[in-house]
Amino acid sequence: METRDRIVRSAAKLFLTRSYQSVGVVDLCAVADVRKGSFYHFFPSKAALAKAVVDLHAAELDRQLTAAGDDDPGARLYAVVDAVTVIQTGFEKRFGAVVGCPFGNLAAELSTTDAELREHVAGVFTRWEGTLAQACRHAAEHGVLRDGVDPDRLAHMILAQVQGLILLAKVTAAPAAEITAGLRTLLAATVREEA
Amino acid sequence: METRDRIVRSAAKLFLTRSYQSVGVVDLCAVADVRKGSFYHFFPSKAALAKAVVDLHAAELDRQLTAAGDDDPGARLYAVVDAVTVIQTGFEKRFGAVVGCPFGNLAAELSTTDAELREHVAGVFTRWEGTLAQACRHAAEHGVLRDGVDPDRLAHMILAQVQGLILLAKVTAAPAAEITAGLRTLLAATVREEA
Repeated sequence: METRDRIVRSAAKLFLTRSYQSVGVVDLCAVADVRKGSFYHFFPSKAALAKAVVDLHAAELDRQLTAAGDDDPGARLYAVVDAVTVIQTGFEKRFGAVVGCPFGNLAAELSTTDAELREHVAGVFTRWEGTLAQACRHAAEHGVLRDGVDPDRLAHMILAQVQGLILLAKVTAAPAAEITAGLRTLLAATVREEA
Repeated sequence: METRDRIVRSAAKLFLTRSYQSVGVVDLCAVADVRKGSFYHFFPSKAALAKAVVDLHAAELDRQLTAAGDDDPGARLYAVVDAVTVIQTGFEKRFGAVVGCPFGNLAAELSTTDAELREHVAGVFTRWEGTLAQACRHAAEHGVLRDGVDPDRLAHMILAQVQGLILLAKVTAAPAAEITAGLRTLLAATVREEA
């Protein structure tokens, strides 16, 4: 693996299993097996590395959302549940517990202390909500949403539900399966059964 | 104000407007205007202080949930929206932005690094979900929930939505009013209109 890639993947793991602030450049260099000089060659700061970590996770999310894609309007909404499930059960298997959403974790920890990182993470959420809104509008056009459910509000509600469910599973040490069940409950309340 | 109380309130403010890890005991002593010796007299560690901060916020949440209480089954659910709105618009006025949920922030930042604090915060969420579940069951018994909506699942869904909406508002620098609007959208999808 290339040095830069090794640093980013080590950071992704450490930020997820610990937190951004609790991991220092010394820890990162030790886990990635690189020297400090090499680290700073690729990343002028830990914040610059955090951006690369966000981009790594964002690329994985895009891959999962595309893989779970489907032309059927109802199925496209449930595909979002599948994408989140694959990612969260993957973390659960790797780390032995739900460790949070990579974006949500950084959003909660850094929004108040690093305006640039906040905007970078906000960009991921905005794009994700845009993708969701497309699926919701597609569902609305095909009469798949329950009466009175606005597609753009539903997109925001699904994204918030994903974040809230992951956070609750993390803090209560619940299994990732609870995230999947919770998302299905929201869709059952907003998408027609026959969909 | 008593010294202990001054330390807890200063910590509550600093943890909310920055983060737990980014605030040191030295900062806390400076803002609370106490000496280190006095600090450690009341709190053996920053983690012990964090527990007291959680308890302070939990008491305020209880107060708001009780104040917003109502006998009408539908109104009792909407009262949860009012309680969250009062707290979040309060923070927005004080700090100039949505800074997150005091419990959600600590849950996201510390669940992976401090098992004892994780359990303490989880306790608040479990109690909060219990209160919500009571209101949801009361609503179900009075036929106020839409067909197929399970009261216990709805309680979990509302709590997750609260957390997710606050997190999204924080990271996208959106106004607290978006949290209120989002919660009303969820209730509109799950509670009968005539309620």
